[in-house]
Amino acid sequence: MEEIKKAPSVKVIPLGGLEQIGMNITAFEYDDSIIVVDCGIAFPEDEMLGIDLVIPDITYLKDNIDKVKGFFITHGHEDHIGALPYVLKEICVPVYGTCLTMALIENKLKEHEMPKKLKLRTVKYGQSVTAGDFRIEFIRTNHSIADAAALAIFSPAGIIVHTGDFKVDFTPVFGETIDLARLAELGKKGVLALLCDSTNILRPGYTMSERTVGKTFDTIFMENNSSRIIVATFSTNVDRVQQIINSAEKYGRKVVIEGRSMINVITLASELGYIKVKDGTIIPIETMKSYKDEQIVIITTGSQGEAMAALSRMAANIHKKVTIKPGDLVIFSSSAIPGNEKNIFKVINELSMIGAKVIFQDAHVSGHACKEEIKLIYSLVKPKYAIPVHGEYRFLVAHKELAVSMGMDKDNVFILSSGDVVELSAEEGNIVERVKVGAVMVDGLGVGDVGNIVLRDRQQLSESGLLVVSVTLDSATGEIVAGPEINSRGFVYVKDAEELFTDLENHVIMNLDSIRGRGITDQNKMKSLIRDDLADFLWKKMKRRPIIIPVFMEV
Amino acid sequence: MEEIKKAPSVKVIPLGGLEQIGMNITAFEYDDSIIVVDCGIAFPEDEMLGIDLVIPDITYLKDNIDKVKGFFITHGHEDHIGALPYVLKEICVPVYGTCLTMALIENKLKEHEMPKKLKLRTVKYGQSVTAGDFRIEFIRTNHSIADAAALAIFSPAGIIVHTGDFKVDFTPVFGETIDLARLAELGKKGVLALLCDSTNILRPGYTMSERTVGKTFDTIFMENNSSRIIVATFSTNVDRVQQIINSAEKYGRKVVIEGRSMINVITLASELGYIKVKDGTIIPIETMKSYKDEQIVIITTGSQGEAMAALSRMAANIHKKVTIKPGDLVIFSSSAIPGNEKNIFKVINELSMIGAKVIFQDAHVSGHACKEEIKLIYSLVKPKYAIPVHGEYRFLVAHKELAVSMGMDKDNVFILSSGDVVELSAEEGNIVERVKVGAVMVDGLGVGDVGNIVLRDRQQLSESGLLVVSVTLDSATGEIVAGPEINSRGFVYVKDAEELFTDLENHVIMNLDSIRGRGITDQNKMKSLIRDDLADFLWKKMKRRPIIIPVFMEV
Repeated sequence: MEEIKKAPSVKVIPLGGLEQIGMNITAFEYDDSIIVVDCGIAFPEDEMLGIDLVIPDITYLKDNIDKVKGFFITHGHEDHIGALPYVLKEICVPVYGTCLTMALIENKLKEHEMPKKLKLRTVKYGQSVTAGDFRIEFIRTNHSIADAAALAIFSPAGIIVHTGDFKVDFTPVFGETIDLARLAELGKKGVLALLCDSTNILRPGYTMSERTVGKTFDTIFMENNSSRIIVATFSTNVDRVQQIINSAEKYGRKVVIEGRSMINVITLASELGYIKVKDGTIIPIETMKSYKDEQIVIITTGSQGEAMAALSRMAANIHKKVTIKPGDLVIFSSSAIPGNEKNIFKVINELSMIGAKVIFQDAHVSGHACKEEIKLIYSLVKPKYAIPVHGEYRFLVAHKELAVSMGMDKDNVFILSSGDVVELSAEEGNIVERVKVGAVMVDGLGVGDVGNIVLRDRQQLSESGLLVVSVTLDSATGEIVAGPEINSRGFVYVKDAEELFTDLENHVIMNLDSIRGRGITDQNKMKSLIRDDLADFLWKKMKRRPIIIPVFMEV
Repeated sequence: MEEIKKAPSVKVIPLGGLEQIGMNITAFEYDDSIIVVDCGIAFPEDEMLGIDLVIPDITYLKDNIDKVKGFFITHGHEDHIGALPYVLKEICVPVYGTCLTMALIENKLKEHEMPKKLKLRTVKYGQSVTAGDFRIEFIRTNHSIADAAALAIFSPAGIIVHTGDFKVDFTPVFGETIDLARLAELGKKGVLALLCDSTNILRPGYTMSERTVGKTFDTIFMENNSSRIIVATFSTNVDRVQQIINSAEKYGRKVVIEGRSMINVITLASELGYIKVKDGTIIPIETMKSYKDEQIVIITTGSQGEAMAALSRMAANIHKKVTIKPGDLVIFSSSAIPGNEKNIFKVINELSMIGAKVIFQDAHVSGHACKEEIKLIYSLVKPKYAIPVHGEYRFLVAHKELAVSMGMDKDNVFILSSGDVVELSAEEGNIVERVKVGAVMVDGLGVGDVGNIVLRDRQQLSESGLLVVSVTLDSATGEIVAGPEINSRGFVYVKDAEELFTDLENHVIMNLDSIRGRGITDQNKMKSLIRDDLADFLWKKMKRRPIIIPVFMEV
C-alpha cells in the first residue's frame, strides 16, 4: 500500500490578545522551530482590583524553549512590546524589530534594569531574518507610531502574512506609504494565511491620512491666535507631535514637552531623526514664563484622562508647573479608548470649570485600517486561510463576515481563542489542539502572586469593608480572658456606630458562651460559627456583607 | 427721601443635578413659599466603592420646611423621582405629577413600604396647581417616557419655564407633540427665566422622531424572519416597547416580557392604557417553548450591560428561562450611557461567542433635544434669564454659548453649581448666596453612614487588601504571651507566601522588643510604630500598601 504523503503544515498559536485585548503574542511553529510575533501587555479589566498590568502566561514557550528562535515585533506600542521585560527574564531569546521599535524596547528594558546581555537586533524594512525553519521579512506599513511593520513569515508550509496594527496612509507624515506592492507580490506567489488587524472593522470606508490632522492643527492655531494652546496626545504618536511642532513653528509658538512618557519618547525620536525641529522651538518648561500665552504650545500626556498624567493634574490644579487659566485652549488629539470615556469627560469638565476652551476628537485620526483598507489587503494578499486578530470578539466576527464577502470559504476563516492551535497546510486547515495560556497579573513587584481568591476578597472589601473580631481565650477553660475587640475599616464611620459595635461584641460573647456550652473546641469551627452569626446579623440589620475576620488567641 | 421700590424677585436654587449628574432637584423660592422641581437619584461615581445610589442632601428644605409647598415632578425617570422614597421619609409634603409619572412614583413608594398617608396628586396637561405664592402649570412635552411635562412656574416676580427632559417629536408614538403653542404664548407674555435640558447640546440638528425606530424594527423583523429576536431597551421607554409589540404583531410573533423592571413598568403602562396590545400577543415566558424561534420576540432589560439584568444573564448563560443560541438576533435598542461602554461590549462579545447576531445602536433615537430643538425653545420662550440644566459642566458651557448665539446677554445666562442661589427680577439677576447641598450615599439600608474616610479605606482595601497583626501582651511586663498572628485578605495568595508571613512575624517580634526597650507603653504609639515598620518593609519588598491593622490584647 502506498503511503499518502501529507503536505507540510505550520501551526499558528495565539498565546494572548484575543480574550485579553492588548496582550498580543502569537507563536508560529514548524517542526523544531517556533517564532513569536509581539509580546504585549493588557491593561487590567475593571474587576482586576489593584492590578497594574497583565502579561501573557508563556508556559507553552518555556515548555518548548529549545524550539523558540526569537520574538519578532511589529511596532513599539505597549500592547505589542510591554511584556518583554517580564518575559525576557524567563526566556532569553533574541528580539527583532525596526529601528524605533527596538529603541523603545531598549528604553523599556533599561527602566526594568535588565542585564545587557540580551540579544536585540534592529532590522530594516525589506530585510529578512532566518530563524530555524522560518524566514521573516519586515514590510513597511503605516500606523500611529513610526516604523510599524507587517511580517511575511516564510515557512516550508507556505507564506503567512501578519499585518500587525496598520492603516493605509497615502500621504504619511514620516516615511512612505505601506508597501502594498510587496504585499501584492506575495499574493501573486501565493499566501497560505493572513493575520489581519480587526480594530476598525466596524467602521466603513477609509481612515483619513495622518496628514489631515496637520491641516486641522493649522486651522485651530490660526483661529486661536491669542490663546495658550495645550495639546494632549499619545506619546508614541511621533508623527502627531511632529505636526503640532510644525504648526507651532508656522504660527510662531515655542513648544514645551510635558509628561514623563512624552519627554522620553520625543527625546528618543528626536535623537533617532524621527522628528525634525528647528533649533530653539522646544524650550524647557521652566522658561515658559518668559513668553506670552500666544507664543506657547504645551504638548502633554493625559489624552485618555489617566488620573496621574500631566493634563489631568493640570485640570485638577495640582500640576507643579502649569496652571490652567480662562482662555487657554486644550486640544485632545485623540479619541476615547472604550472604558476611558468617563475619565476623559471628568478632565474636560474640570478644564471647562476653570474657563478653558476644549476641543475633543476633532484633531485626531485613527491609526487602524477601516473596512475598505482591510478589503484592499485581502484583495492583494489573497490568502488561503484568514485569522482575524487584534480586537474584541465582536470585531473578529465582523472581520470573518468581511473575509467571506471577499470570496473566502467560511471554513477557511478561523476565529480563534487564545491557546487554540490551528494547523494549516496547502490541503487543509484545522484547529488541532489547545495549549495552556492565560493572563498573569502584575501587582507592584509581584508577578502572578495575586489570583482569583485575592481578587474576590478585594472585590468584597471594596464593596463592604471588613470587621476584625479579636478575643483571647484561656487555653484550659476556653473562657474569654481579653476582648472581644472589634476593629473595622471601610465598613461604617466608626464614631457614629458605637451602639452597633457594642451589639456586635455582645453577639460574640453570647455566641462564644453557647459554643463552649455545646463543647465545641475546634478553632476553625468556632471561627466559622462566629463569622456566620455576625454576617447574618449585619445582613438583616444593614443589608451589608463586610468580610469578617475572627482572630482567636490562647493563653 | 423717596424709597426706591425694588422689583419683586424669585430665587432659583439647584440642590443637586449639576456636579452629580442625575440627582435633579431644584428649589424655587418666593417670600414664604418654596416649591421643588424633581427629586432624583444619581448613580455612584466609580470611586464610590460599594455605594448603591446617591441622593441629595435636603438640609435646605428641612431648615425651611414651613415654606415647602410640594414637589412638582416633570417625568418618571429615576434621575427625577428616585430619591422621593428617601426624601419623603424626612419631609412629608405633597407630590404632583402627570398620570404615568405618579403611577411610577406610587410603585416605587410601595416597594419602599412607605405609609399610605402621603399626598400624591395627579395633574393633567394644561392644569395648574397653586402652591403658596406660586402657580405651576404642567405643559405637554415629548421624551423617552410618556407623560413628560415642562413646567410653567408663575410667581409674583414673573414666569419661569422649566423644560424637564424633552425633545420635539412631531410624530410621537403615543399622545401629541410638545405644546409649542403654549410655550409661544408664555413667551409672548414675557418669561423671566428658562431652565432648559442640556443633555444633547453638543449634537447638531434635530433628534429623530421615536416613530422612526418603529420603521427600523419593521425592517429588521422582515429581514430576520427565521431568527428568534431579543430586544433590550429601557423599561420606562413605553413607546419603544409599543413599537416592538407593533412589529411583533405585524410579523406574527408572540411577545415575552422579561426582567423585573420591564415586567413592572409594562404591566403598569398597560393597565393605564399607555400600551395597546392585542389579546394573546403577550405570552408568559413559560409557554415560549410551544412556539418556533421565528414566532418569538423577547423584550428585556439589560441594554446598558448591567451585570444582573436579564440580557446580561442570558449572555453569561446563567438565565434560568432563556438560553441564547446560534442564530438568535439580539437588538440593543439603546445607546451607551457614558461609563457603560465596556459592560455593553462585554455582553455583545459574549453573545457573539455563542453565535448570536447583534445589532447595536441602529434601532434607537435619543429622548433629548439636539441643538436646533433647543434653539426652537429659546426662540419661542424668549426668556430674560437662562439657566442651563441637566448635563455635565461641558454641556452647560456649550448651552450658554448657544443661548448667547440666540441673542441673550451673556450676563443673563447662569452656569450654576449646586447650592448657588440665583435671585432674579425684572431688573436684575445675581448669584446672591450659597446654601448647603451635597450627595448622600446609600449603602444597603444605610443612608449617609458611609463617608469619605470609609470610601478611602475601601479604595486602599480594593487595591492592596489588608493585614491583621494580632498579639496578646502581658499587661504587667508588656511581654508577648500569644502571637503574633498574621491574617491577610486580598493581599497575596497565602499558601504561596509562608516565608513572607514568617518574615512579617519576626519583624513584629523584633519591633515589639525594641519598643519595650525604649519604654514605650502607649498602645496607640505602639500600634503606629508596628504599622509603619511593616508598611515600609512591604513597600520596599513588594511595592504594595495593604491596610495594616494591629490588634493588641492584654491579659
